[in-house]
Amino acid sequence: MRVLVTGGGGYIGSVLIHALVGQGRLGAHRLSAIAAVDRQLASLPAGVEAMQGDLSSDAVRGAIAAFRPDTVFHLAAVPGGAAEADYAQGRRVNLDATLGLFETLANARTPDRPAPTVVYASTIAVYGIDLPETVRPDTPLHPPLTYGAHKLACEILLADFTRRGLLDGRSVRLPGIVARPRSPSGLTSAFMSDLLHALAAGESFVCPVGPTATAWWMSARQCAWNLMQAAVMDVPRTDAGRAWPLPVLRLSIEEVVRTLAALYGDDRTGLVRYAPQPAVESVFGRYPVLDDRASRALGLRDDGTAEQMVRRALGERLD
Amino acid sequence: MRVLVTGGGGYIGSVLIHALVGQGRLGAHRLSAIAAVDRQLASLPAGVEAMQGDLSSDAVRGAIAAFRPDTVFHLAAVPGGAAEADYAQGRRVNLDATLGLFETLANARTPDRPAPTVVYASTIAVYGIDLPETVRPDTPLHPPLTYGAHKLACEILLADFTRRGLLDGRSVRLPGIVARPRSPSGLTSAFMSDLLHALAAGESFVCPVGPTATAWWMSARQCAWNLMQAAVMDVPRTDAGRAWPLPVLRLSIEEVVRTLAALYGDDRTGLVRYAPQPAVESVFGRYPVLDDRASRALGLRDDGTAEQMVRRALGERLD
Repeated sequence: MRVLVTGGGGYIGSVLIHALVGQGRLGAHRLSAIAAVDRQLASLPAGVEAMQGDLSSDAVRGAIAAFRPDTVFHLAAVPGGAAEADYAQGRRVNLDATLGLFETLANARTPDRPAPTVVYASTIAVYGIDLPETVRPDTPLHPPLTYGAHKLACEILLADFTRRGLLDGRSVRLPGIVARPRSPSGLTSAFMSDLLHALAAGESFVCPVGPTATAWWMSARQCAWNLMQAAVMDVPRTDAGRAWPLPVLRLSIEEVVRTLAALYGDDRTGLVRYAPQPAVESVFGRYPVLDDRASRALGLRDDGTAEQMVRRALGERLD
Repeated sequence: MRVLVTGGGGYIGSVLIHALVGQGRLGAHRLSAIAAVDRQLASLPAGVEAMQGDLSSDAVRGAIAAFRPDTVFHLAAVPGGAAEADYAQGRRVNLDATLGLFETLANARTPDRPAPTVVYASTIAVYGIDLPETVRPDTPLHPPLTYGAHKLACEILLADFTRRGLLDGRSVRLPGIVARPRSPSGLTSAFMSDLLHALAAGESFVCPVGPTATAWWMSARQCAWNLMQAAVMDVPRTDAGRAWPLPVLRLSIEEVVRTLAALYGDDRTGLVRYAPQPAVESVFGRYPVLDDRASRALGLRDDGTAEQMVRRALGERLD
């Protein structure tokens, strides 16, 4: 099986590539080739083919078509805050380059191969604000950011390529993934990662949402595992939407702080000062209960416990 | 008020332009200028400015920006059957040119004017097949054609321009509009119009769906009235989706045939031979009950009765 990862130079992409290489398989299939696309690809594991360049460039599109992947993980994106600030850039990557990738893959098909599987990293930002007490599969989707609007549009376009038999699309909606590097990521939800890093390092932290703000959390390792599961899970043919939220741990900020204090020491609790920003709190601080039974039935999983999520998120820092 | 109609050379566009000219107003606002965009503009009423050309051309985009419309009716589209047969053409018009229009209007804004109102002609083809007994505002949307997928994507993009305060978008989902001219329209639902024309003219008709097939019907005159209402209706600010189905008459083919027989003579009934095609029947023959209370609360209306729908649809032919 030949696997392509777009956004392979990013945080989740790097974790996914290392997981793929380490595993050497995807479900029952042995991996025969792995390629990574990104504008900046730093150190790739040995044997991973580098396609450095812009996803929408002719050079990269040609390389993708020539590579003939069986499975594609499409992670490349301009994140939420950055896309909101720069509409043109967000449109170019999150809408145009994504649809262009779907078309490149569909056009590169040959009759001797099944339609390539495309695991598309969508986002819980498709849901919107003012959510009901429980988010269900039929909860209407009203993205509160252009980022989420473009992601939702591409979910719909991918489902249409799937309906036409050109691709086998699986959109998974990623929650807040931790712990991203502390460098500015352009993600408004970056505070979730910054909180973990700061308290683990014994530094003070100003939190842009209040202690009772609830968010949906997942470690990058668990996310990578779920992306791999999404590629091999047995999707019912009758599922026309082809989009699932990843199962999540729904945790308040104070629950996460308590977990960090249990791991690193009780003094950590006093390091947090709360300065809630209404704009951040309304988008990232009020996630309700998620009815993720359909996702779990397909084998997708959360981190299990808050402690396990934090341990995985901070990785070797705890060892 | 300055009004622009895209697809002004098409069937609904022509009916809308004549209604606008005849009325001279849109709600409380006097119409000071009307312009029509289309690749082919035949005879426009006196005083209507012609912008003949491709909606995605620089010339037409420049003309639209210079015209500075307060209200835009966006009807231009590659219809369902044609878009399914020619993906590239469907994408170019139904997705790219539509998003390009939204961007042209947003970029042409000046601080002294409110955001232009954009009435977007979406489609009931966003709903999908295998629908529940009643289609409600929260019924999940699974377009069964690329046409519907592109329309739904543009609903989402227009709602995002509205959220950002750049446009005041109102997507209305059009049902089967009758009676389109008998020339090939590229619409798979054209049989609904062809049935009316044939029986009115006393000609035989082979129906691609069975007698009990139910569809959602509206005359073009009622559709034009609803588009004008959509431009002036008072939309709650909390409505994040900005998309409503037009209220419809849900009628089986045999009810429509009975209505035609009552108007034109009982012999008409025998003119219909049923040769159901599963592909047509699954998309256009099983429309369930539509919960359109939210649309009605905004002043949108159906034709009232089957007889009135047929009379309006066939217009002067009955006089």
